[in-house]
Amino acid sequence: MTIAHDSMSSQIAALADGSRTASSLAEAALGRAKAFSDLNAFVAVDEPIVMRQARAADQRRRLGRRLSPIDGIPIAVKDNYLTIDYPTTACSNALPFEPSGEDATVVANLRRAGAVVLGKTNMHEWAYGATNSTSSFGATRNPHDRNRITGGSSGGSGAAVAAGIVSAALGSDTGGSVRIPSAACGIYGFKPSYGRASRHGVLPLSWSLDAPGPMTASLEDISLILPYFFGQDARDPATDGAKPFQEARSSGRPRLIHLVGPGLERSNEVDGTLRAALDASDASVRESTLDHMDSYFAAWEAILHCEASAYHVQRSNADMSAYSTVTQAHLVAGGMLSGLDLIKAQRIRSHLVETLTRGLGDWDALVLPTLPIVAPREDEEWQEFSGRRVTTQDSMTWFCWIGNLAGFPCISIPMPREPGLMPVGMMLMGRPGEDEALLAVAEWIDKKLKRNV
Amino acid sequence: MTIAHDSMSSQIAALADGSRTASSLAEAALGRAKAFSDLNAFVAVDEPIVMRQARAADQRRRLGRRLSPIDGIPIAVKDNYLTIDYPTTACSNALPFEPSGEDATVVANLRRAGAVVLGKTNMHEWAYGATNSTSSFGATRNPHDRNRITGGSSGGSGAAVAAGIVSAALGSDTGGSVRIPSAACGIYGFKPSYGRASRHGVLPLSWSLDAPGPMTASLEDISLILPYFFGQDARDPATDGAKPFQEARSSGRPRLIHLVGPGLERSNEVDGTLRAALDASDASVRESTLDHMDSYFAAWEAILHCEASAYHVQRSNADMSAYSTVTQAHLVAGGMLSGLDLIKAQRIRSHLVETLTRGLGDWDALVLPTLPIVAPREDEEWQEFSGRRVTTQDSMTWFCWIGNLAGFPCISIPMPREPGLMPVGMMLMGRPGEDEALLAVAEWIDKKLKRNV
Repeated sequence: MTIAHDSMSSQIAALADGSRTASSLAEAALGRAKAFSDLNAFVAVDEPIVMRQARAADQRRRLGRRLSPIDGIPIAVKDNYLTIDYPTTACSNALPFEPSGEDATVVANLRRAGAVVLGKTNMHEWAYGATNSTSSFGATRNPHDRNRITGGSSGGSGAAVAAGIVSAALGSDTGGSVRIPSAACGIYGFKPSYGRASRHGVLPLSWSLDAPGPMTASLEDISLILPYFFGQDARDPATDGAKPFQEARSSGRPRLIHLVGPGLERSNEVDGTLRAALDASDASVRESTLDHMDSYFAAWEAILHCEASAYHVQRSNADMSAYSTVTQAHLVAGGMLSGLDLIKAQRIRSHLVETLTRGLGDWDALVLPTLPIVAPREDEEWQEFSGRRVTTQDSMTWFCWIGNLAGFPCISIPMPREPGLMPVGMMLMGRPGEDEALLAVAEWIDKKLKRNV
Repeated sequence: MTIAHDSMSSQIAALADGSRTASSLAEAALGRAKAFSDLNAFVAVDEPIVMRQARAADQRRRLGRRLSPIDGIPIAVKDNYLTIDYPTTACSNALPFEPSGEDATVVANLRRAGAVVLGKTNMHEWAYGATNSTSSFGATRNPHDRNRITGGSSGGSGAAVAAGIVSAALGSDTGGSVRIPSAACGIYGFKPSYGRASRHGVLPLSWSLDAPGPMTASLEDISLILPYFFGQDARDPATDGAKPFQEARSSGRPRLIHLVGPGLERSNEVDGTLRAALDASDASVRESTLDHMDSYFAAWEAILHCEASAYHVQRSNADMSAYSTVTQAHLVAGGMLSGLDLIKAQRIRSHLVETLTRGLGDWDALVLPTLPIVAPREDEEWQEFSGRRVTTQDSMTWFCWIGNLAGFPCISIPMPREPGLMPVGMMLMGRPGEDEALLAVAEWIDKKLKRNV
């Protein structure tokens, strides 16, 4: 089956020149969602709900009352974003299958611009894992190979975009949950700086690590949708002082620091793909190591489990059996950490921020593969690469959690691959608050890579 | 023995008109420190160190090179501020009696302005208590009654100012440690908004509650010394974006909210003094309650003990016997709290901030007595007032910790009393970051009260 990449920018152009209507885009998306139902990308799609939104968009356009350039574009929403029309379950049996009566801030922003919410996408239960194999709706399958996972936790959003059902989908990212399925499915994914985008109405996993972010068919699409994510929202105190999206200036030849060394291993296949892409990009690249990876990872895990346990404590005390056994183990682990453990983790986190800030200096971005391997087969519990043997779960967050612990903006872009090979993503990490500058660097590289495909 | 209140502003005027020299001020302070040695206010005063600074100030003035209006003014420094010339022990046996080789930021700021560091003042061990009865140098005595405590933890600074040894002293405040001895000794004390003043070089007790602050003989002196406290300091990340001191505009008739009700009891003597002062001040006053005082207090204690344990963990693991038995108990308690306890405490803290912000509305300040009782006798372990029976320790922090948990600026000013009675302080709490507006309110009230003395 072919993988389509109908970008949001091409859909916007088609709506503008009248060659497509919102209704025809919606019908195509609904048809494609059905055709690709074996991916298990969606947990709720309701044709009447979708078509009502699309027809309203068409009517606005006919009357010259278009709300924005994206008025009428279908968008998929991860099942941990509250939506007024669809239920929100975080793909957990602990929540009822009922609409929540409220839209998350990002969803509300998109609706005000006329975007059509196509449906809710499958995810790793409570976003508490990075494989998308654990979900009350069953596992998600990778459009490039049905025997492989999408990665998660925004795996349904990744599959929906990669299969061309939608050009853009919403994800959330606590240790890579936007970037992991983006890389595994061969699309673009952006994790904003901590506190730049509102989490209001996105069910939390770990509030000091969580960031909502878009997953799209093209890099241009990231710039088109980020304005609906960024800016201050009184209902998410972390966005206090957050700036709205600014048009990115174009970047000069980027100067990148490629992180390598212990704790940053990757398979030869992935390493070769990255090095070839960096060569092809003509960016200036130097290598650097990052010490104390074990301590940093332990700090990320401590904060993650402790905050998740705190968020779930009432529900888990009332009925632990509503959670999968893996999530149960995590919640119990989080409850066993001491206050001193948590404070130590926060101090190690400060150390990471200082180290990365100093390491980055006046260079443009850090660069890593997004994943150390290509998307694993569904039945593999362990992954081996470059002398490391880790669980499939840990292989998915392998590089990505660094961006969450530090709060730095990150982007995953697909790299050129021979036909038939699984996608491999390049991850770029920029300075906190300078999301647009990171985007400009990614655009520079993406353009060069496309010229070389 | 008489209590002198030679204010900093009068000393500045005397230096300016040539009626005093820095050397004569220093000699007078040294003489008075000796005369009042029974207060045990100082733990280190070195005549050659003091006179060298004073003579240098006099020489600068003779040459027309005065560094600032306070060039040559003697100032006392709490023993938890690092000082290049004097040892810094936090009045604990755990630290050596040796100079630290560095000045705290506030001390360095004052020295650059030419202030003369007279000596280090006695304090409650590690600032971990509010009576000043526990100190490696022995208890401090109240200048108004030698059988009564000064309160703490900045008790030596309180006694030194109240006895007229210095016009200003440095304190630090985690649950009232500036305001408590200010009220108990009848002087002025200011706790800045959290993050407005640099703590760099001030030994921490609990970094999310700690604030350094001045203790002075007059309210004008607070305005004269606060500029050396306020503003951004890269070595204290909490001051990121902190504004320098702005000249306070004068306040109109202040609108105050007097907090009363369960958890906010005070003795009849203190309540009567406060109500009489509020009447005399002619401020507009309405009463309000503050629910959940027990939860808020538990949250303050959890954060305090957990952060203090984390700060001390290496030293206490190595030699717990270097701490007093009370401090040992606190450190052990802090280590037993879970990560979930700490997170819960932080959430309750957010709730307090929201409640106080909403409660304050567009009114000017919250008002309370600084202490629920006058300074207790040294041998009293329990205090009883208005149906409450609490330890002397808890009676000292009774109202004050609210300001630290919320991070709001607070000031304690003495109220008019019949001759021979122990001092009673009025505490005003303003909006975070609006320290100057709070100061203006205090000035309005102080002026009215002085007219009525």
